[in-house]
Amino acid sequence: MKVFSFLTPQHETCIGLEYQGAVYNFTRCWEIYKDIQTAGRGPAFSFLQIMLELDYFSTNTFVEALQTINELRPLSDFQITDDFTYEIPISRPSKVICLGRNYAAHARESGNEPPSEPIIFAKAPSSLIPHQGTILIPKGIGRVDHEVELAVIIGKTGKSIPESKAMDYVAGYTIMNDVTARDRQFAEIKASQPWFLSKGLDTFGPIGPYLVPKDQIPDPHKLDITLKINGEIKQKSNTSNMIFSIPELIAFISRFMTLNCGDIISTGTPEGISPLKDGDIVEAEIPEIGILRNFVFDAPAV
Amino acid sequence: MKVFSFLTPQHETCIGLEYQGAVYNFTRCWEIYKDIQTAGRGPAFSFLQIMLELDYFSTNTFVEALQTINELRPLSDFQITDDFTYEIPISRPSKVICLGRNYAAHARESGNEPPSEPIIFAKAPSSLIPHQGTILIPKGIGRVDHEVELAVIIGKTGKSIPESKAMDYVAGYTIMNDVTARDRQFAEIKASQPWFLSKGLDTFGPIGPYLVPKDQIPDPHKLDITLKINGEIKQKSNTSNMIFSIPELIAFISRFMTLNCGDIISTGTPEGISPLKDGDIVEAEIPEIGILRNFVFDAPAV
Repeated sequence: MKVFSFLTPQHETCIGLEYQGAVYNFTRCWEIYKDIQTAGRGPAFSFLQIMLELDYFSTNTFVEALQTINELRPLSDFQITDDFTYEIPISRPSKVICLGRNYAAHARESGNEPPSEPIIFAKAPSSLIPHQGTILIPKGIGRVDHEVELAVIIGKTGKSIPESKAMDYVAGYTIMNDVTARDRQFAEIKASQPWFLSKGLDTFGPIGPYLVPKDQIPDPHKLDITLKINGEIKQKSNTSNMIFSIPELIAFISRFMTLNCGDIISTGTPEGISPLKDGDIVEAEIPEIGILRNFVFDAPAV
Repeated sequence: MKVFSFLTPQHETCIGLEYQGAVYNFTRCWEIYKDIQTAGRGPAFSFLQIMLELDYFSTNTFVEALQTINELRPLSDFQITDDFTYEIPISRPSKVICLGRNYAAHARESGNEPPSEPIIFAKAPSSLIPHQGTILIPKGIGRVDHEVELAVIIGKTGKSIPESKAMDYVAGYTIMNDVTARDRQFAEIKASQPWFLSKGLDTFGPIGPYLVPKDQIPDPHKLDITLKINGEIKQKSNTSNMIFSIPELIAFISRFMTLNCGDIISTGTPEGISPLKDGDIVEAEIPEIGILRNFVFDAPAV
């Protein structure tokens, strides 16, 4: 069972469920299951955010809702048969916190020693694009690199979370491609300046396609992670190679700042970063989650 | 006329208006004026955000609503007479974009040349606290500094906004104190790392008290800006000393990333930064906006 967000032809953002080989409009199911009306509130209304806040985000809840609905009306009534447009899996996160140099081999390929404590930076939420979306490379921006990462969705707001309790705050996982304006970032690093610009350009945050509930991935530190450009493998590692584990990251970050429900922590990229160019098809894959596919096009100068 | 957000005794976030010497619950007025029900949606529901999106955020609109209401019911019915708790003036901004070294004298006091293009970084939205809120200094964090700044609230979503049109995207102004874990930031700068941690600690983003509509401040580049600790002036400058003007900042940032309605741009601090300590009362002032007052307390180690 996999969860995703999609846009209906009426431009409403709904939750979709892939379940037993078919795809359903789960927002419609949920309206009947809970006797509420969520339609028509427009794209700003984040149903998934509310599911997280009410602690409904688990495989059991989704399956139970589908089974209950099925007793009232045939599930096929809710099947999505047409093509649909993917949306970013969680809209309006209040923070997208990324990790720098959290794989030793990647730290070394960019000329740095592995860090002694996590290096965190912010990615602008406005940079996020969904599965099938287009990464736009503005003319003159220089080298732009891919960075495949396992992203963690926070399901419960917390501060000073101990490592031993950190996994209670995780709702699920998705894939992020932390696209980076590398020449710009090198200039920032040289001048000891923040990385917000080089990491935050519009379209530089592909994320998705699925949000997989935590209960489906018993050990997030044993996941193969790869990135292909036009079918050729560029990055290939395993999340077991992360320097700081997910509980360590959650404990570290939440010492300083509250983690809010719906926040995203992207856990850093393994070695093999390389530049993107016009016409590329980029596929970031974690088999337990799916394949995040994006297209690359040149764009006018910023 | 000044706009603010406050928490009712029922823990509902409402808009307050200071108008002709009295203070009104404008959310209640607006419900009657527009025949809608906004109450009971809880603190997550950002009425002000919706006012911005619908382009209602102007002195004329506020005053017109009050005058219309006054013909139906005495305005005194909506007067807030009890003490109330201030809230941050705009909740859940998707981006809080801050400027580094945008006053030459401040750049120099921290040992840097004035920059040739804007230096931008992100402040975690979870760091924001309201007027009268408490800045907590975790034990062991080292030196923590105040930085008074003029903050701009974006009222309309835009990308690649030309300088000549930039002011059309401004809804209004408030005051921000960009509190900084300075020792931590120096370490980040030395290691060429991002500033997200040193700038993003919980309570390190005092903002408010008022959001003043743009129409009330004809020239935002001619505002006195001061910060006092326990009544003693520490920072004193004028926004005319900014290196990059508000239109230049909006044009520069929006070349790279979409500015969303409700985003905040904090325009940098003048010279005079100094450390905060337990028991301090910090007052950041721009006379046309008000005084943002916060208390400083020591807190347990992170």
